[in-house]
Amino acid sequence: TIEHIFKEIFKASLELQEDDHRKALLVSRKRKPEDTVISVKGTAIGNGSPQYVMGPCSVESYEQVEHVAKAMKQKGLKLLRGGAFKPRTSPYDFQGLGFEGLQILKDIADKYDLAVISEIVNPAHIEEAEQYLDVIQIGARNMQNFELLKAAGKATKPILLKRGMSATIEEFMKAAEYIISQGNEQIILCERGIRTYEKATRNTLDISAVPILKQETHLPIIVDVTHSTGRRDLLLPAAKAALAIGADGVMAEVHPDPAVALSDSAQQMDIPMFDHFMEELKDLQNRIRTEVPVR
Amino acid sequence: TIEHIFKEIFKASLELQEDDHRKALLVSRKRKPEDTVISVKGTAIGNGSPQYVMGPCSVESYEQVEHVAKAMKQKGLKLLRGGAFKPRTSPYDFQGLGFEGLQILKDIADKYDLAVISEIVNPAHIEEAEQYLDVIQIGARNMQNFELLKAAGKATKPILLKRGMSATIEEFMKAAEYIISQGNEQIILCERGIRTYEKATRNTLDISAVPILKQETHLPIIVDVTHSTGRRDLLLPAAKAALAIGADGVMAEVHPDPAVALSDSAQQMDIPMFDHFMEELKDLQNRIRTEVPVR
Amino acid sequence: TIEHIFKEIFKASLELQEDDHRKALLVSRKRKPEDTVISVKGTAIGNGSPQYVMGPCSVESYEQVEHVAKAMKQKGLKLLRGGAFKPRTSPYDFQGLGFEGLQILKDIADKYDLAVISEIVNPAHIEEAEQYLDVIQIGARNMQNFELLKAAGKATKPILLKRGMSATIEEFMKAAEYIISQGNEQIILCERGIRTYEKATRNTLDISAVPILKQETHLPIIVDVTHSTGRRDLLLPAAKAALAIGADGVMAEVHPDPAVALSDSAQQMDIPMFDHFMEELKDLQNRIRTEVPVR
Amino acid sequence: TIEHIFKEIFKASLELQEDDHRKALLVSRKRKPEDTVISVKGTAIGNGSPQYVMGPCSVESYEQVEHVAKAMKQKGLKLLRGGAFKPRTSPYDFQGLGFEGLQILKDIADKYDLAVISEIVNPAHIEEAEQYLDVIQIGARNMQNFELLKAAGKATKPILLKRGMSATIEEFMKAAEYIISQGNEQIILCERGIRTYEKATRNTLDISAVPILKQETHLPIIVDVTHSTGRRDLLLPAAKAALAIGADGVMAEVHPDPAVALSDSAQQMDIPMFDHFMEELKDLQNRIRTEVPVR
Repeated sequence: TIEHIFKEIFKASLELQEDDHRKALLVSRKRKPEDTVISVKGTAIGNGSPQYVMGPCSVESYEQVEHVAKAMKQKGLKLLRGGAFKPRTSPYDFQGLGFEGLQILKDIADKYDLAVISEIVNPAHIEEAEQYLDVIQIGARNMQNFELLKAAGKATKPILLKRGMSATIEEFMKAAEYIISQGNEQIILCERGIRTYEKATRNTLDISAVPILKQETHLPIIVDVTHSTGRRDLLLPAAKAALAIGADGVMAEVHPDPAVALSDSAQQMDIPMFDHFMEELKDLQNRIRTEVPVR
Repeated sequence: TIEHIFKEIFKASLELQEDDHRKALLVSRKRKPEDTVISVKGTAIGNGSPQYVMGPCSVESYEQVEHVAKAMKQKGLKLLRGGAFKPRTSPYDFQGLGFEGLQILKDIADKYDLAVISEIVNPAHIEEAEQYLDVIQIGARNMQNFELLKAAGKATKPILLKRGMSATIEEFMKAAEYIISQGNEQIILCERGIRTYEKATRNTLDISAVPILKQETHLPIIVDVTHSTGRRDLLLPAAKAALAIGADGVMAEVHPDPAVALSDSAQQMDIPMFDHFMEELKDLQNRIRTEVPVR
Repeated sequence: TIEHIFKEIFKASLELQEDDHRKALLVSRKRKPEDTVISVKGTAIGNGSPQYVMGPCSVESYEQVEHVAKAMKQKGLKLLRGGAFKPRTSPYDFQGLGFEGLQILKDIADKYDLAVISEIVNPAHIEEAEQYLDVIQIGARNMQNFELLKAAGKATKPILLKRGMSATIEEFMKAAEYIISQGNEQIILCERGIRTYEKATRNTLDISAVPILKQETHLPIIVDVTHSTGRRDLLLPAAKAALAIGADGVMAEVHPDPAVALSDSAQQMDIPMFDHFMEELKDLQNRIRTEVPVR
Repeated sequence: TIEHIFKEIFKASLELQEDDHRKALLVSRKRKPEDTVISVKGTAIGNGSPQYVMGPCSVESYEQVEHVAKAMKQKGLKLLRGGAFKPRTSPYDFQGLGFEGLQILKDIADKYDLAVISEIVNPAHIEEAEQYLDVIQIGARNMQNFELLKAAGKATKPILLKRGMSATIEEFMKAAEYIISQGNEQIILCERGIRTYEKATRNTLDISAVPILKQETHLPIIVDVTHSTGRRDLLLPAAKAALAIGADGVMAEVHPDPAVALSDSAQQMDIPMFDHFMEELKDLQNRIRTEVPVR
């Protein structure tokens, strides 16, 4: 019948349009079929072997960060993250140490041979921040701060882009496209939970976003288990799910003494918990990815 | 200061209240610390070894179900699920074969020594359905159909209770409490995705619900990867995440010829895909749970 | 270009399909352009003059209901609502007086010449309930309890159908279609808020659903300001918005002494508040709909 | 009993904490009970008489904006809004004319004696933008771009702050607090719909946010009916609801020829529709607020 033919044409058109559309995006796997692997001070992200981005929510002092850095070093980790510019809901909450915090991170990274990652919130700071950082983070609240994305697109350092609190996967890819279209192809995507009606967790970890983004884009994707769950008791199970579903890495927060942390005290791990967390994950990693053994 | 003392009392009261509250629930782990293990025709659900509940979305014919049953048998599976009473959004969609469908399931179960699971939607049907079924399913749309829950609570067969489309974890537990408070302690919980703004998947798989429910209740919990993702390409990664995070089982839909299925044709696996799905999951299961080997 | 022609065909097909689809629904305005006006004991719902459905959350006693009935009578209202079968999240909450509660409602309705509305939750109760009720309510939790909808479709009394907690407008219309397709054309739709991430209100009043449903269907639509806001201080402003946007009525809860109510004590109005509420709304109604004066 | 006393103390503590908390905010009505009235080139916003902020989604040309400005002038309106810096989901969409667009707005404002409002997206642009604009808009995507908020807090012009796509009312107030805490007390809040599962509208207009924000803060609040509904056919009903519930103004988009608009063509009004829109709203306004007559 005519109607049937119309439906077929309809479907064909639909697919054509979608094809064109995705092909157009530089982040799309249609544009570049092979995985993008990002090298951060010699550590590869996106090569099939998961990496761990760990550190305190906020940089509070040299001692605090060093404490965490040592624990990470002992576990063979390389990617230290700490917040120096903190986007906080209230103007009266601790706003971070700013460039002084970046300096602390850099000093410790130099001392322990680590790479450092920290969030930048102002387009005007990107250039200066590159002197301190190995990876520039753009946070969830700024995922559609397009001025910041454009500035990040001109940076020479890799960008870790977090998904917005209520961003669709499509919007997330287009935010990455803002960066790549300015010339910076080194982008690490980060799923960090989405806002839903469910309040048992701080956000709802959208674990399915990982395989979708792996299919649709050529970029590495890591999972922030701290902000997606907001619960210390869920960090390990969520990280296991992330590894099993194919994430390129896991991000979590560690603090020498979470009870006195200046931000997010309820969700950071202390050192013994971190040690256990890493042992469990490396054991799982060894079991499920025999081809890429880790120590 | 006074304010500080007040805050301490505040927190103490809060915890006290929450404690009391959870202790009161019969489904709570505070009430029964050890895991509930449910035996379905000799197959244990909830004993640490994951189980697989598979079958077509709708029972369409004897031949269709038998085709799937044979494939399951070859993989050593025991738990066959098929829909006979179909709650469909539109009254003009296929509504299922009803008791005739249950008879088909029972005949095939007898022939192949399988256990059968099917959804019941009317409290008045529960008693009759027990003659056909090994497990009675209560679907997401009926999670707060309290009349149905009460009738299920008087049944002698185990109940598979699916989480409502926008139910909180707390509401989910209280729905299970309706069943257990009527005397039926054999309840399998099923996470099947929640409704969010994200439309890349049919629902958003709330993977964190699994460890939360394992902590809060003593009941087994399985993950329906078909309805949570609604995408054939995500069934396997989602199932891997479910196993890794500690689910007691996985549910998915299989159809001999999904293209002609009377419902949900876009999300069911065909037999070769099912074979691959099971091989991958059993491999993962063997790797991550060495203490419980499976063939 | 070819691509452009394809796009045009695409759009045409899309519209054709949507047209067909909506035309098929019996609740659709395409099927019946003129408004359905429902007469409840001589009171018209859907004729352009808004009506008020008021009463306690739960029927607790004859005295309690009579107290409210008298206050309604004084304001010239006719539509008394009270809950006798209460679908409660926990099995340990007050579950309502059942048929005894319906009897109380009927006795008071007879005495004060009011019409009564109450929720029925079991398909097996519909027939018996018709002896007591002028309108049968189907609650939000049962919007996709299709067995109940089918039973309601065979009733001889009008049905007040509440939107499900996370139902789309399309699902809401199709739930109404279940009723009308069984022969009962007397359906009043009720917007009662949807579940979102925002917790400042109990639900989020989806006020735009009112004009959409007025356009898409020929059925009257009322707004439940109590469950959508869950806050006594928002009942009046929400009701004003409902009248201004074209709702056919407003539903709210009134209790002689909300502080001791057996359910939902935080959101019911007491009598003086109800008096003020009605005066304000009738004043607004007189101002905005001069063609239909009310006393 | 002890438990009861604890509960009472609990409630008291809770209220105390909340009280303190709200009192601390400068935007809170506890801090300043009287309404903040903002004067924009002689037009008062927040004095009980609603105002209308109208204009094209994007500034495309002098002629286009002038066309709208003339229509507004004829209706006695003063507040012209147009987008020059456009935050667009994709980097390949039209990004706006930038400062050239602001110049067009200013020229037309001077010619027709209007006030102009436009969005600024980069903290570094705020100071320069003040030369062109009477009100600086901060858009939904930037509601938690705290660097931008701080810069806005140092501006000498009023700020129109839109609610973030999935911001809670509390987060919205705290975003305003970022501005006021830097010294700028002239803030107009704008409800523009929130992201929910419902896709019949572009966003879900959270109409209840209006009375909540009027209670909690002393700031004027307007409703953007264009972005909350995303549907031309819902602009008028939504605007009526906004006026009835007590909004201080309505914002909507008008374009001389929406079909060729460079952005959001599906939701802008053309001039005849705008004329009808304004007539209907002024009629409603006259009816419901007799004490403040408008022409």
